[in-house]
Amino acid sequence: MNSQAVYYEGDETFRLGEGEVVAPATGEVRLDVAYCGICGTDVHIAHGAMDHRVRRPQVVGHEMSGTVAEVGAGVEGFAVGDPVVVRPLDTRDTTPADRGFSHIGRNLKFLGIDTPGAFQSSWTVPAFTLHHLPTGVDLRLAALTEPLAVACHDVRRADLAPGETAVVLGAGPIGLLIALVARAAGARVLLSEVNAARVEFARSLGFAVATPDAVGAQVRELTGDAGADVVFEVSGAAPAVLAMTELAAIRGRLVIVAIHPEPQPVKLFDFFWKELELRGARVYEPEDYERAIALLAAGELPLERLITRVEPLERLPELFHELGDSVKVLVDCRG
Amino acid sequence: MNSQAVYYEGDETFRLGEGEVVAPATGEVRLDVAYCGICGTDVHIAHGAMDHRVRRPQVVGHEMSGTVAEVGAGVEGFAVGDPVVVRPLDTRDTTPADRGFSHIGRNLKFLGIDTPGAFQSSWTVPAFTLHHLPTGVDLRLAALTEPLAVACHDVRRADLAPGETAVVLGAGPIGLLIALVARAAGARVLLSEVNAARVEFARSLGFAVATPDAVGAQVRELTGDAGADVVFEVSGAAPAVLAMTELAAIRGRLVIVAIHPEPQPVKLFDFFWKELELRGARVYEPEDYERAIALLAAGELPLERLITRVEPLERLPELFHELGDSVKVLVDCRG
Repeated sequence: MNSQAVYYEGDETFRLGEGEVVAPATGEVRLDVAYCGICGTDVHIAHGAMDHRVRRPQVVGHEMSGTVAEVGAGVEGFAVGDPVVVRPLDTRDTTPADRGFSHIGRNLKFLGIDTPGAFQSSWTVPAFTLHHLPTGVDLRLAALTEPLAVACHDVRRADLAPGETAVVLGAGPIGLLIALVARAAGARVLLSEVNAARVEFARSLGFAVATPDAVGAQVRELTGDAGADVVFEVSGAAPAVLAMTELAAIRGRLVIVAIHPEPQPVKLFDFFWKELELRGARVYEPEDYERAIALLAAGELPLERLITRVEPLERLPELFHELGDSVKVLVDCRG
Repeated sequence: MNSQAVYYEGDETFRLGEGEVVAPATGEVRLDVAYCGICGTDVHIAHGAMDHRVRRPQVVGHEMSGTVAEVGAGVEGFAVGDPVVVRPLDTRDTTPADRGFSHIGRNLKFLGIDTPGAFQSSWTVPAFTLHHLPTGVDLRLAALTEPLAVACHDVRRADLAPGETAVVLGAGPIGLLIALVARAAGARVLLSEVNAARVEFARSLGFAVATPDAVGAQVRELTGDAGADVVFEVSGAAPAVLAMTELAAIRGRLVIVAIHPEPQPVKLFDFFWKELELRGARVYEPEDYERAIALLAAGELPLERLITRVEPLERLPELFHELGDSVKVLVDCRG
């Protein structure tokens, strides 16, 4: 069998090589990977920022779609040829300290970071990570399921209700997906973004977009001076963190989506004064995947627009240096 | 009628003078004030920190108990002699931006800050601010209703459940009351405090108390390494804010009770990683007063222990300079 894989070798270097075709053990399934998107996390890995977690050489990648190629013993409900996506969380090693939240458990392993990933033509994974896709779904769009599930989780953590006003700080891929999911949930959405290309692109999707210096006035205008019901902090920028509490209405909810490696100044006074709530959100739970797949199947989100381009697996080593202002670059992993 | 009042005159100065006996208008009730506690807010006022809100001269004070002296037209349910407490929030001027949360509404007026307060023998207030006290209640203890209602609100905002572990950062009067209410709600409580006298006093109430450098290890020991279900930040100290997220378990809740006038560095990464929640809490709602009065009536909290001393109204001007390590100083306002 002809199999290809791209290996992270450390020091911003990726190498195309022969892939390993791993026969599925009991409870496992081997997949033919169709497409795998490049995630911000993969870029962090490329920059060496996650070398404490990623072995070298290792195949990374986790935003994938594919079909079942081989079914291991004891696996029910999946057959060769089924279109699927992987929820890349190995949640088996639970501890009491996880308090039942296995998706953020202490010993959680992330497929494609802590274990081999999907930038290869053949990928063997535990069957419990799989979600069925509807027959006939476009596997290119389906490769967006994972980031779309992130957005579904973020919107669910916000308890966003129809008719509410949501502000999304940062219009990168996750910010855009949150905005799309929030709009689909019936919210009025305003994005805040500094980058001119991103502002332009978000507007082309029909969103109101403001620069950070103007977003406060626009939120007040949109809400009759009340402020936003929900603010999503997706930018990772310190000025956004300082501003977010001012944008929120009395008893508004703020969701921290971005990763802030360092402590950031927060206006705690606003939390006291307006009884605000801040909620962290990380990855997803199975129901977020199901919601993402339902949105995908409904075909109402302009996901096609988010795919800047599709490139073959052998170009992945260079691609990490060519992302520029792209929204989502997909890698075609079909052998 | 002989009436006394103490007036804040600005510049750390208070003056004893004649009180104004205001006949109750429609919807109002005139009270004979029995006792009024000195709150941290009153101390802030004394230091001039709230001169932007407090007129001079003005009577301040809001932690009171008393009896009905005179009932205005249109007031039902209150009769002369009834023992009562005042929930010192004038919530009448609501706006749509308040979204129904009148206790933190934009035009909220706080009795004793924005309007005259209770450090006087006769006080006339809107009837809707009154709560009945059970017959025979000790009016000295009843003067603790207001800060006890703050604690009830904070514990309610935390959704604290029996058997959960709560850490209270700061063992001042509000920290102690939160600890007492949390313990009464069936939680295991650990306090963190730097001041040796406060540590000692909290221990005398039967609480486990740690210094900030030791609290992390104690929380881990108490919870089998899981962390606290709830952390109350009552200290107002920057190091406590930095540490609070580390103390919390996965999906733990943090309640911001203290006033932090300046932005403080917060470990947002912990919010992301453990999906923590932070909730601001300010003053109280009517049900918090009812809960506080029920706790008072049950007589199971050692509230008597919190009263460091009771002093006559004429000594109030000096008292502001003599508080030292006192927990709660009550002023006897009976004419």
